[in-house]
Amino acid sequence: MRIAVDGYGGDYSPTEVVKGALAALEQDKDIEILLTGKREELVALAGEHDRLIIRDAREVIGCDEVPTVAVRTKKESSLVVALDAVKDGEADGLVSAGSTGAVLIGATLKIGRVKGVERPALAPALPTVTGGNVILCDCGANVDCRPTYLVGFARMAVAYQKGVFGLENPRVGLLNNGAEETKGNAFSVECHGLLKNAKGINFIGNVEARDILSGEVDVVVADGFDGNVALKSAEGTANAVFSLLKQGIYAGGTRAKLGALMLKPVFKGLKRKLDYNEHGGAAFLGLKKPVVKAHGSSKAKSICGAILQVRDMIAGGVSERLAADLQKDVQND
Amino acid sequence: MRIAVDGYGGDYSPTEVVKGALAALEQDKDIEILLTGKREELVALAGEHDRLIIRDAREVIGCDEVPTVAVRTKKESSLVVALDAVKDGEADGLVSAGSTGAVLIGATLKIGRVKGVERPALAPALPTVTGGNVILCDCGANVDCRPTYLVGFARMAVAYQKGVFGLENPRVGLLNNGAEETKGNAFSVECHGLLKNAKGINFIGNVEARDILSGEVDVVVADGFDGNVALKSAEGTANAVFSLLKQGIYAGGTRAKLGALMLKPVFKGLKRKLDYNEHGGAAFLGLKKPVVKAHGSSKAKSICGAILQVRDMIAGGVSERLAADLQKDVQND
Repeated sequence: MRIAVDGYGGDYSPTEVVKGALAALEQDKDIEILLTGKREELVALAGEHDRLIIRDAREVIGCDEVPTVAVRTKKESSLVVALDAVKDGEADGLVSAGSTGAVLIGATLKIGRVKGVERPALAPALPTVTGGNVILCDCGANVDCRPTYLVGFARMAVAYQKGVFGLENPRVGLLNNGAEETKGNAFSVECHGLLKNAKGINFIGNVEARDILSGEVDVVVADGFDGNVALKSAEGTANAVFSLLKQGIYAGGTRAKLGALMLKPVFKGLKRKLDYNEHGGAAFLGLKKPVVKAHGSSKAKSICGAILQVRDMIAGGVSERLAADLQKDVQND
Repeated sequence: MRIAVDGYGGDYSPTEVVKGALAALEQDKDIEILLTGKREELVALAGEHDRLIIRDAREVIGCDEVPTVAVRTKKESSLVVALDAVKDGEADGLVSAGSTGAVLIGATLKIGRVKGVERPALAPALPTVTGGNVILCDCGANVDCRPTYLVGFARMAVAYQKGVFGLENPRVGLLNNGAEETKGNAFSVECHGLLKNAKGINFIGNVEARDILSGEVDVVVADGFDGNVALKSAEGTANAVFSLLKQGIYAGGTRAKLGALMLKPVFKGLKRKLDYNEHGGAAFLGLKKPVVKAHGSSKAKSICGAILQVRDMIAGGVSERLAADLQKDVQND
């Protein structure tokens, strides 16, 4: 198995990307990595490694560039060269911490959608309070969705849960502003009807944003605008809680400071658990080959996590499962 | 100043509502409360109090009733009788912990909108990390909004910030999935243009959901569906953090448990700070008289908080400010 890694994507590239790639090679002796970017710089950073293939790419796509233009014109960029390697069958999946727009557009164009997929979507796996995870799909790749897209998001995320996390019959919920069937805006009411009648989806109904992490649902589908709001509100709140906690400890005197010291490992574990970026990135689902978009601020640990995440998606046959499910469900309809 | 309180709204009514009302009368010797519900029960709970007026109301509107029907047919309900008191000028504002739908519809019908308000909206004040608060408007009273509604939400929330919290020129942001002006769905792009050009609004641009609590914005406007997702995702995450923290402490052995014990006051303060319901409820803005919807699970403390919140809205002239602002801005346009 070979994984393409965009060597010049992300705020801390190429240094942290190289470190992350080496860490992944260390953790899994069965994978190979195809790393793209300025050869001399990458060689200087990585040294020699028999499972690390360096492919020269002289250009870099910045986060301020128009994605469609950048992907089309910068054919020698680290991202496009990595995508081409996947397209040509030289690699089985891809990781990039670069411009989200460029990764989404480039991957859709170069790697292509699984037959039957209307729109690929971004889908992070978030930790639940019961120790599992929930896939939130879509989180921002598509805004102004048609209701039918969300049925596709459900199938894609279900294939991901089955392939990577081994769930047999993932429970699918629709993000809504109330639990009752009649709740919501015109869009969510229409989505509810479609999901309820879709074959092969274990639809459990509407899910309020406060219950996403409850552990009572395995997949939550949403328009990318709403999914993005839910995800970022969760991130912002987690940060706010830690920030207020710190203020409270500071104001709480010696006793509070001592207590905080004793709880340090617990706080650290909690922070790690909540930060899904630390484990990898957001899967970009619906493509013929797995793609993971790591956070722009990823350091070595996150890059390594993202590489192992793509490995799991390849090994779990996420794309193949989706293709088979779509084939089957279309025949059943 | 007299405040009408729905004595039979909320999961713990009438007992906790009565307790909350008495606590508010104790805290502020200048207010009177007009409490509605079954007279004999309320008298038994409250005893005699010279600033507590009990008005008999024999019916109760349940949370499972269709709001429009309930408000129209249950004229003798505790909610409708309280609304009538406001409508007739016997009270200056209202608190209810009852059915959200019935409160919104009843208040809009009975109390009426300020001239120029397209849609009243629900607007909780959330604590920011810098010690202030941010008004999130709308949080669920209106879904499928027209872009013009959001300009109104901004004016309403600005009048609230000015009147109650004393801000001179509140910064207004638009909830969006990216900070750049061109980001968002078709709706948010249109809203952005309207807000940018609206007179008398200090519009600072798009705000991502992760930055709502940052303290860098005083008012965040959104379609009620999106605002609801942001609010509930924040609630759910705060709960998840506490739940995971508890698990971590439990698993962390004696040292962690001792640390937690020492941090107990800090945790308690943090929880209280994050739970905006503990301080009151969500203001229902845009009406001729202030209305606060307390959470259905409110106990005495929250009811008391909501009553004092309505008092502040009356004292701060929130409705009058809004009326004046709308008059002025319409003339300027």
